[in-house]
Amino acid sequence: MSSEGQKQELRKDPIVGRWVIIAPERLTRPQNVNHSDELPSDTFDPFLEGHENATTPEIMSYRDSGQPDQPGWRVRVVPNKFPALTVEGQLEKRGVGIYDTMTGIGAHEVVIECPHREANMSRLSVENIREVFWVYHDRLVDLKRDSRLVHGLIFKNKGARAGASLDHSHSQLIVSPIVPVTIQEELDGAANFFKYRGRSIFCDMIQQELATQDRIVFESEHFVVFCPFASRFPFETWIVPKEQSSHYEDVTQPVIEDLGSMMKTVLSKMEQGLDDPAYNYVLHTAPFSVEKAPHFRWHIEVFPRLSRVAGFEWGSGFYINAVPPEDAAKFLRETEVDVS
Amino acid sequence: MSSEGQKQELRKDPIVGRWVIIAPERLTRPQNVNHSDELPSDTFDPFLEGHENATTPEIMSYRDSGQPDQPGWRVRVVPNKFPALTVEGQLEKRGVGIYDTMTGIGAHEVVIECPHREANMSRLSVENIREVFWVYHDRLVDLKRDSRLVHGLIFKNKGARAGASLDHSHSQLIVSPIVPVTIQEELDGAANFFKYRGRSIFCDMIQQELATQDRIVFESEHFVVFCPFASRFPFETWIVPKEQSSHYEDVTQPVIEDLGSMMKTVLSKMEQGLDDPAYNYVLHTAPFSVEKAPHFRWHIEVFPRLSRVAGFEWGSGFYINAVPPEDAAKFLRETEVDVS
Repeated sequence: MSSEGQKQELRKDPIVGRWVIIAPERLTRPQNVNHSDELPSDTFDPFLEGHENATTPEIMSYRDSGQPDQPGWRVRVVPNKFPALTVEGQLEKRGVGIYDTMTGIGAHEVVIECPHREANMSRLSVENIREVFWVYHDRLVDLKRDSRLVHGLIFKNKGARAGASLDHSHSQLIVSPIVPVTIQEELDGAANFFKYRGRSIFCDMIQQELATQDRIVFESEHFVVFCPFASRFPFETWIVPKEQSSHYEDVTQPVIEDLGSMMKTVLSKMEQGLDDPAYNYVLHTAPFSVEKAPHFRWHIEVFPRLSRVAGFEWGSGFYINAVPPEDAAKFLRETEVDVS
Repeated sequence: MSSEGQKQELRKDPIVGRWVIIAPERLTRPQNVNHSDELPSDTFDPFLEGHENATTPEIMSYRDSGQPDQPGWRVRVVPNKFPALTVEGQLEKRGVGIYDTMTGIGAHEVVIECPHREANMSRLSVENIREVFWVYHDRLVDLKRDSRLVHGLIFKNKGARAGASLDHSHSQLIVSPIVPVTIQEELDGAANFFKYRGRSIFCDMIQQELATQDRIVFESEHFVVFCPFASRFPFETWIVPKEQSSHYEDVTQPVIEDLGSMMKTVLSKMEQGLDDPAYNYVLHTAPFSVEKAPHFRWHIEVFPRLSRVAGFEWGSGFYINAVPPEDAAKFLRETEVDVS
């Protein structure tokens, strides 16, 4: 078996059932050359307004003027130039002896969050951030019509240490024919809790956090922002909606209205309080293939990249965190930011 | 709740059941100051022979001469100066509302692999490497007598990018009152396979790998070394014993005899073929609390740290690997090394 001309492939670990994307084309990514912790801000920016021909043709945009792939846009979505999965082809599942594989069908898109060069989402206007979250919504609504695809994962890598290869503020969407293992574990865990107690674990968690206030960063009309009790990483922060909703694509206007200023506040606190750290956020949402689930709730997890994840964590899924979430929440709570 | 005087604590994520160690004392680790990718090799080396008083008092050593904490040792084990878990105290489990915690009881030890300053385990003599693996054995045998502890995780962080804070070749042992989630998932997955097929997944995997040879790096009398079918990371390499054995502490003399030269070969191939990369290895072994298990087999997983793990992986447990394991295995197979 050779990788010449090999396309993306999904492969399942035969012991734990974890799916891995084998994507040889990604070898040519700029990041594989740049091992520094800094992303250059003086190089050519393919995401800049006016540089539309430096990206793959756009899938959609919110714009004030102009045609697709021309200036005038506010938020723009393009296929990832180095995709982990691609939409072309048949979804084929097959066995290779004891192993299971699937063709690497799916979508891998980039959301360019602003037309000007800005590395920090926290410095975008509240309205701009809201539009980014509307774009996430619109893409999920569009992609869930493809019956081959079962889950959409939205995430952001900010800074080289968080895996970004370009500094212009952007996020990504991977829609795949399988449910990622972490999402499946959350669904299973939340379903078990619901079966046992007849309540949603997300409800219980929010109630307890609001009652004790120890780990609360802040609260808005529609969201509770807190450092989770069993935080894996220093300053890990979760953003959980107060209303029950398992699928992000069902989000409503008032919720996104709130989400814009809320995300600006969270990210500004991290940027200003933690010295502009690299970070990741991931939007956890129920699979397309699952009905509205009373036990699961979409939410956003933010991880500043302050400490290296060492061997122990990789080998065991067992994390060591040097900053108690109570201290992290207090620090973020007391970090004053102006988000007007 | 304040962290003043707070000790290590184990906390369980209420959704997925993942345990996290909250260990505030680790904040003072050198690594938290040094964010560079290089470990200085010209600074004071607390692990050097003659510097025994720079470490915590030794737990054990293999030595040619001298008393504990004096020169004359070949391999030396000391408690980690910044422990994630400590042996003192009662193992107490309690609920905090909906959450579960446990006191951070356990052992966190450092195995200093050689008396001279050498960063690469691959450059130690075969006999020296064998002794390191005997030390792992001896520590597990000793610690499993403590009925509070259920699992021992042995791992190595080599290089700053892999989480090491000192360059002198060393590995670590964390023995904990819980089974790490990755080990539990392997045990469960392997038990399911055994129940369904009546065979060990490790047997099947080795048979298929030896039959196709596509992913074999090499084979020795007692081990098969291969890049797994669903490799999460470029050049991920597994070392699996040919004989069934679930618990590393039951390892026999001929197997360790082989393991020494085998590890030297694997690590030399990585060092010479991949330009001295940072790497982690983790020894997966069955919990003390589990009887000899025909379905599970202890093994070693090695991960060179060639690419950053980005947000997608963190949020989903869903990995993207740009190097097909067939290519990685071919490269490592063809990297000639002299390990005499």
